[in-house]
Amino acid sequence: MPESFGARLEAVFDSFGQLCVGIDPHPYLLDEWQIADTAVGVRDFGLRVIDATAGKAGIVKPQVAFFERHGSEGFRALEDVMAAARQAGLLVIADAKRGDLGTSVEAYGQAWLTPGSPLEADAMTISPYLGVGSIEAPMQLAESAGKGLFVLAATSNPEARWLQSAILADGRTVAASIVGDVVGWNRGRAGTAGSIGLVLGATVNFAEFGIDLESAAGTPVLAPGFGHQGARYDELASIYGASAPWAIVSASRSILQAGPHGIAEAVALQAGEVRACRE
Amino acid sequence: MPESFGARLEAVFDSFGQLCVGIDPHPYLLDEWQIADTAVGVRDFGLRVIDATAGKAGIVKPQVAFFERHGSEGFRALEDVMAAARQAGLLVIADAKRGDLGTSVEAYGQAWLTPGSPLEADAMTISPYLGVGSIEAPMQLAESAGKGLFVLAATSNPEARWLQSAILADGRTVAASIVGDVVGWNRGRAGTAGSIGLVLGATVNFAEFGIDLESAAGTPVLAPGFGHQGARYDELASIYGASAPWAIVSASRSILQAGPHGIAEAVALQAGEVRACRE
Repeated sequence: MPESFGARLEAVFDSFGQLCVGIDPHPYLLDEWQIADTAVGVRDFGLRVIDATAGKAGIVKPQVAFFERHGSEGFRALEDVMAAARQAGLLVIADAKRGDLGTSVEAYGQAWLTPGSPLEADAMTISPYLGVGSIEAPMQLAESAGKGLFVLAATSNPEARWLQSAILADGRTVAASIVGDVVGWNRGRAGTAGSIGLVLGATVNFAEFGIDLESAAGTPVLAPGFGHQGARYDELASIYGASAPWAIVSASRSILQAGPHGIAEAVALQAGEVRACRE
Repeated sequence: MPESFGARLEAVFDSFGQLCVGIDPHPYLLDEWQIADTAVGVRDFGLRVIDATAGKAGIVKPQVAFFERHGSEGFRALEDVMAAARQAGLLVIADAKRGDLGTSVEAYGQAWLTPGSPLEADAMTISPYLGVGSIEAPMQLAESAGKGLFVLAATSNPEARWLQSAILADGRTVAASIVGDVVGWNRGRAGTAGSIGLVLGATVNFAEFGIDLESAAGTPVLAPGFGHQGARYDELASIYGASAPWAIVSASRSILQAGPHGIAEAVALQAGEVRACRE
């Protein structure tokens, strides 16, 4: 068995702390960076973010949509960016938010989580709209390949509350039920941190959703919502409680807006700020 | 303004009827077709399905996951397959089930629905897990570009009932609320069929979800669940009621299993069966 994603994540946390740098080649950021909005441009942007991050933080999260805009050439760029990141020792979380059923969702898992596949990442984000039961194949694939999966549960955008707080037949909210399923999955397996994680936005009121963060200790949490979206790093413990030590603190715009010349300093500074919250 | 997707869909229905042929290069189907499970193989498979379909049915639906398995080369294959389909006069629904928020979901819309983009399709499927509000940008993009969007509402897999039948603050189910939002969107716009559609599986008990199909007349419905999944073509009217004339009857395995030599005949036969249900 390969080393589990959870164990690899804990090692990265020990070396670099919990900051994850988003690789989001928005057209407007490319413009600010004076990089063309082309497949070559998004590749260049991604490689520069990796250069700036390696040795200062341990995790990157490319937003697949901005590569997909450029079609197969954009995916070629993403392959290069992810390979360079992994070569530099960074953990790569592909923010793909895929979701389907049966052999289709299995194929998505294979695309991103199979060792040696062109789009190989260390973990990917996945959507449970077709049921948590629909994503069991990629959950199993992740476990067996030493990879990770982050299931969307309660996201940081206000227009998501409508669905994610809907009440199931058993009285729980959609989001709380997903948290329970993923935590239960990890409990049955891991000695260290689990390999199946959750996306729980930092601006979410977890009590309102009936989400029990105490029970989720040990389950990795991908935590967007810091910086531009409103949460501050020094609120990490108060927001995530018992889950705070397993939170991957994701920042994109607040780092990327430093531009190509300022980004290395911004990563170093913010990685230090996030580490300081842990001590 | 370009001709709307809804108007184009109605023209295709008039010429060829309501059958949509899935392009699903499953590894096991490739094996049956004696085609290698490579990027070259999935391209070959896709082009053969198009050859067999052109002139006999009007719509194809490539399942993106099976191309994504092969990384950027798989996407290059998909670009070739979609371009060939559009050149042959087929409407292409990219079954991508993308979903995200803000500029990311906008980028997914741009990737698949922008005229001239490498991955240009006529329509795509999209997931509302981050809220129907989160997908407004691609909805607007689709309208302005003469493209279509199919929002997952009630899918055909049993493990989805859990979430899709959850009860919202206003008392409706998740699925019924999505149906209401999409129908409302179309009502404000279209003279002909709407351009924003719904995914409503043929094996779903719509009454149980509180879905009012009478109100949905004129909204395109992507209808999986026929053939291998259990519904029969002659049940089209009884399943979809007032929405039946706008249902895109999707069949994959039941056609593709005919193999490379039998598929043209299978498409002609099944397209005729679906047309017969309309008369």
